[in-house]
Amino acid sequence: MNELRVDGDSLMKLLSELAAHGRSPSGGWTRPALSEADAAARRIVIARLAALGLEIRHDEVGNLRARRPGSDGAAAPVWTGSHLDSVPSGGYLDGPLGVAGAVCALEALARAKVKTRRAIEVVVFVGEEGSRFPRGTIGSAAVSGELSAVEVLALRDAEGVSFADALAAYRDPGAAIPARVAPGEVHAFVELHVEQGGVLEANGAQIGAVTAIAGLVQRAVTFTGDANHAGATPMHLRRDALLAAAEWALALERAAREVGGGAVATVGKLEVFPGGKNIIPGRVEAICDLRAPDAAHLDAVDARAVAALQHGAARRVAVSERRLQRVEPGAMDERVIAAVERAAAQVGLRSHRMVSGAIHDALHMAEVTASSMIFVPSVGGRSHCPEEETRPEHLTAGATVLAHLLLGLAG
Amino acid sequence: MNELRVDGDSLMKLLSELAAHGRSPSGGWTRPALSEADAAARRIVIARLAALGLEIRHDEVGNLRARRPGSDGAAAPVWTGSHLDSVPSGGYLDGPLGVAGAVCALEALARAKVKTRRAIEVVVFVGEEGSRFPRGTIGSAAVSGELSAVEVLALRDAEGVSFADALAAYRDPGAAIPARVAPGEVHAFVELHVEQGGVLEANGAQIGAVTAIAGLVQRAVTFTGDANHAGATPMHLRRDALLAAAEWALALERAAREVGGGAVATVGKLEVFPGGKNIIPGRVEAICDLRAPDAAHLDAVDARAVAALQHGAARRVAVSERRLQRVEPGAMDERVIAAVERAAAQVGLRSHRMVSGAIHDALHMAEVTASSMIFVPSVGGRSHCPEEETRPEHLTAGATVLAHLLLGLAG
Repeated sequence: MNELRVDGDSLMKLLSELAAHGRSPSGGWTRPALSEADAAARRIVIARLAALGLEIRHDEVGNLRARRPGSDGAAAPVWTGSHLDSVPSGGYLDGPLGVAGAVCALEALARAKVKTRRAIEVVVFVGEEGSRFPRGTIGSAAVSGELSAVEVLALRDAEGVSFADALAAYRDPGAAIPARVAPGEVHAFVELHVEQGGVLEANGAQIGAVTAIAGLVQRAVTFTGDANHAGATPMHLRRDALLAAAEWALALERAAREVGGGAVATVGKLEVFPGGKNIIPGRVEAICDLRAPDAAHLDAVDARAVAALQHGAARRVAVSERRLQRVEPGAMDERVIAAVERAAAQVGLRSHRMVSGAIHDALHMAEVTASSMIFVPSVGGRSHCPEEETRPEHLTAGATVLAHLLLGLAG
Repeated sequence: MNELRVDGDSLMKLLSELAAHGRSPSGGWTRPALSEADAAARRIVIARLAALGLEIRHDEVGNLRARRPGSDGAAAPVWTGSHLDSVPSGGYLDGPLGVAGAVCALEALARAKVKTRRAIEVVVFVGEEGSRFPRGTIGSAAVSGELSAVEVLALRDAEGVSFADALAAYRDPGAAIPARVAPGEVHAFVELHVEQGGVLEANGAQIGAVTAIAGLVQRAVTFTGDANHAGATPMHLRRDALLAAAEWALALERAAREVGGGAVATVGKLEVFPGGKNIIPGRVEAICDLRAPDAAHLDAVDARAVAALQHGAARRVAVSERRLQRVEPGAMDERVIAAVERAAAQVGLRSHRMVSGAIHDALHMAEVTASSMIFVPSVGGRSHCPEEETRPEHLTAGATVLAHLLLGLAG
């Protein structure tokens, strides 16, 4: 078993080949779902998988599935994979690492001449980022059945292009297999991904074993006061929309800390109107993003966020809000989590159990099979930006843990 | 004396003639300094002043001065006036009321066949609003000597047009007189203006007797934290620039209340970067506007505003600030303030002593002569917006108080 090691040079080479597609003039990588850059990256992956002699298929929404047969043709396969699309001006690892790591893990299994009882399938999910079409995790939602293939094909991007039309240009030759997978049809799913936060760095661990994917609630809030002259209006006669919004943003922070249990709350978007330096803010438009690893904590932080809006009344600032979306949290499978820890230990790495605050395809896969994720540390916790980076030894370590994990799960 | 009343219909007609120039397609009035709309409004005023037989002159920066002679040619004249330019999409009263009110007050004096010992001059100051050129109160600053005529003529607007070139198109025929006025050369100055706040409404008074014009300090502040994923970054690992800015904005409010003495503090401009709904704010750019009626209170609120920036350190958010401008407060003259109160009482109106939070030409006039202002109530405290309004009976009352005041001051 000691020979089962991913070739770091080969992994870095594949990542840099993928990174040649979708370079953004404004920095980083812009590889929208089903774009030519997305298709070009996929062709590179297909070539590497084909060189391994795998059977390569695609499903009706464009997910790629490459099968390494097992000795027991009747046993449910183990799946692993991630996505190749990116946010605008994002990094080169969010998505591609889980695909390239899977390819290199299978190459390592081949080099070690390891046979498994269960088949192993590498999956490249389409449209994980919600940047082009109105939602993200499209491919995995079609696999879990949250979205039907018909619903997926009818999605349209901001230019009015349908998913179906975009897929026609992107699609691989040959017949498509159904996207949806029935419970029991897949034995387990594991996804290698960059952490996108600073928890592993803060804990000095090389591997994260993901116990849950946080759910989220996003709410849009409008604060309406009175836009008056900043000099001529005494403090006690003001209805300052910005101060009401400021109290609310700080109350959200307290709410997340008090609720605990991994809950987080963020006001990332906040616009002040009219925005003149000598005019009291008359209106503020803000969006809050609330997350927690389980529904009870998500409900608790959400309830406090809504209750905190009542602060506006003391300032005679009117408040209106509407929920933009809610995504339910997903617990990972204890056996797969423990298997990630064992695989890390086998390779001599320190692992840390943690929640994923970001949403991933593993959230939908958890609805149809035992799932978890392998996280590797993000330098400075940065992600979704050109500076997104993970140290090379951590990239190789993550893929090697994946190889050991696949071997353990596929038996 | 009972006959000394301004004709309300005549005042409303003049205000509506002025309001015919500079209507903005986006609502309200846009009458930039020295623009064709500004010049057109000025021509209307000149025609009304000429009909009174006044001697009309202009100074080297374009201020208009129309003189009603007194019986003692050696006595220093009393000045009154305001401006005709506006902010973009502003109201129809900020400025024009003080000009139209002065014209109608002189018409009332003429109808009442009143002679005064001192001459009375109506002044139309140029460039009071800081919207076109890089600063406001340009005309009165040239009168007080804060700006030399050479400095004024060298100012340039955002399109690069010099004040001198704009003035060439705007200027009245005939030779210009010097702008600067020596101490003692003017006996007193009084300016009729809309309040632009809600103090008179809140106090049930029809007339404001202005005791001081607040000075101001404006500071630009940058908060720099870390733009990270809103889901993947635990609360304790965040460096949220918006929360640091929110604490600061609330601290400014407390500072103004604690300092008291009429101090006010406003964060009117605040921008969040990158501004994504699922990204922790990495940077906030904000501007604060601090005002107080005297230097001691202005210093106190400014010192607290700067000290409050230290809150950022607890969040590991870096803070940098620079002062954009400081305008010193100006005390009005007690004899003129008392004369405003007497004039209001003569007409049977309730007056209220108050500070002007907004800056006016009277601030510079106070540097060279005994000055005060007459405020009339702004409906809902609104100003610098299309909704700027004052009830017609209050407009007429203000101009009638001005007529009585001029008579009292000119003897």
